[in-house]
Amino acid sequence: MTPAASGVVLALDAGGSTTRALVLDPAGRPLARAAAGPGNPSAVGVQTALGSLRAAVSQALAGAGRGGREVRSTVLATAGSDRLVSPETLVEHLGLDPGVPFRRVSDLLAMFHSAAEEDTGAALVAGTGSVAARVRDGALERVVGGNGWLLGDAGAGFWIGREVARAVTSDLDGTGPATALTPALLAEFGLVDDRRPREGRAFVLGEIVDLVHAAAPVRLARLAPACFAVADAGDAVATGIVAAAQEELATLVRAVAGPGPLVVGGGVWRRGAAGALAPGLREALAGRDVLPAADGLLGAASLALRALGLPTTPLRALRGAGADPPS
Amino acid sequence: MTPAASGVVLALDAGGSTTRALVLDPAGRPLARAAAGPGNPSAVGVQTALGSLRAAVSQALAGAGRGGREVRSTVLATAGSDRLVSPETLVEHLGLDPGVPFRRVSDLLAMFHSAAEEDTGAALVAGTGSVAARVRDGALERVVGGNGWLLGDAGAGFWIGREVARAVTSDLDGTGPATALTPALLAEFGLVDDRRPREGRAFVLGEIVDLVHAAAPVRLARLAPACFAVADAGDAVATGIVAAAQEELATLVRAVAGPGPLVVGGGVWRRGAAGALAPGLREALAGRDVLPAADGLLGAASLALRALGLPTTPLRALRGAGADPPS
Repeated sequence: MTPAASGVVLALDAGGSTTRALVLDPAGRPLARAAAGPGNPSAVGVQTALGSLRAAVSQALAGAGRGGREVRSTVLATAGSDRLVSPETLVEHLGLDPGVPFRRVSDLLAMFHSAAEEDTGAALVAGTGSVAARVRDGALERVVGGNGWLLGDAGAGFWIGREVARAVTSDLDGTGPATALTPALLAEFGLVDDRRPREGRAFVLGEIVDLVHAAAPVRLARLAPACFAVADAGDAVATGIVAAAQEELATLVRAVAGPGPLVVGGGVWRRGAAGALAPGLREALAGRDVLPAADGLLGAASLALRALGLPTTPLRALRGAGADPPS
Repeated sequence: MTPAASGVVLALDAGGSTTRALVLDPAGRPLARAAAGPGNPSAVGVQTALGSLRAAVSQALAGAGRGGREVRSTVLATAGSDRLVSPETLVEHLGLDPGVPFRRVSDLLAMFHSAAEEDTGAALVAGTGSVAARVRDGALERVVGGNGWLLGDAGAGFWIGREVARAVTSDLDGTGPATALTPALLAEFGLVDDRRPREGRAFVLGEIVDLVHAAAPVRLARLAPACFAVADAGDAVATGIVAAAQEELATLVRAVAGPGPLVVGGGVWRRGAAGALAPGLREALAGRDVLPAADGLLGAASLALRALGLPTTPLRALRGAGADPPS
């Protein structure tokens, strides 16, 4: 028995809200999964991120009845900066053997490998933010979008939420059409629809403006689900926002055109693709081999197996609903 | 001699970057002016705002050879919330006689009265933010726009600056056209144009994204002057942003249509109106009596004189360049 065959491989996907861990045997069969809190050090700080990673790893290894020293290969997929924590720190902190392969990859690259067998293609994520990449020979060749909520991330959750809030302010000050997004936003914010004038404005408009500016801007992303629901019910303003968002995503899809499959993921993508597609997006997707992916966990597992020269074919059976941890 | 005739009137305009004070005699003749730092408590906090107000008032009264107890009427024009400091606190803090008229008004209403003789009309400010109001019988009847940088303020300085930064990121990641805004932004940020790829992106693009998100979002307004300059030089992307900004301002102008003059002010308005007007804005302004105003200081002076039943006609001579303090 080779050392690799006697141990396990470890896949990690550290996101801004959840950290997932998956332990597999050398044949690519899952032994245990676990989930913990946010593991992106750019988003939540190094200590919180390390704590989440350690919790997820400990729980998954315990579930598999193994220890950190039995891990033969680890791949950690993460969003955010890779300069905040060194690989050496991570290996030590997670109790891994420093002599075996440890690789950190972009969450976008991991998501690509979660669904694609090939080493060349493209990936698109539309969640709170949006970003797309062309992958060539297993590396990111070109990344577009993903410039953060203030400048980019067009067509994704924050962008949609801000458009919703803007449409509601326009409704309330009379510069835009009435929309069913207004009662939806008031319900989400827990506000009473009091439009009595105060210094030339509807009272509730001032309350909305104060609440929005008092919270972290990305919190506006929580209005995206309401936008899809109100659009489904036929509201013209909400339908226009959803269509405009899809046209923005179409720009990203076109920018990563080329050979190989297009792997797509993210909550806004899944929700948006459940309805009718805007013409620009339908056109951009025409003829592409579109593969959905839940996250980067299976891709991390695939890369961790490949680092040992082991086959990844058993992972095919895990794609789809099985990719989510049981927590 | 009446008490009013023996004293002075005090006009104050407390903005987010400058606080201006003007002391006049009862005949409406200016005796002294002064300027100090930011005086908007919503923007800079109560202590800083009070300090700026006291500095401007002390200096202006000293210049006029008068004391706070000789002030017979005060009007303070201010942006932001009027709930952070009570009038009583202001009167005491500024060393004014609590028995004489003291009124606080919106900066928008004061700007209207800086240029308009009438009590009915409209006002539009386009500076860092944008807001417009219909004024009726000396009060704000309807306010539109001005919902803050995150939701509103379309067509103003922050909005233009964000569009500039977005256009530059699109240029650098290849999803948008090349534009002379890119070298202009790099010069403003003090960055070297290093487009060598790093994880699928131009290196300098990552630097821009980090710098933008590390600073206060409204700081993007500092890119607006570059946008006008690059548009003047014929750049299509910059010209498009300026035109789109003017269409946004046209929406505000149309929303406050009605009888009486339209008083306009703010740095972005002055800079934008110096060039060609976009069709929508030209149309919205057609037939309107458009009066420029530098700020709300003369309007505050006018309202302070009127509070004593004194004529405001001498203020006419002060409109134009003379409204700015000598600092």
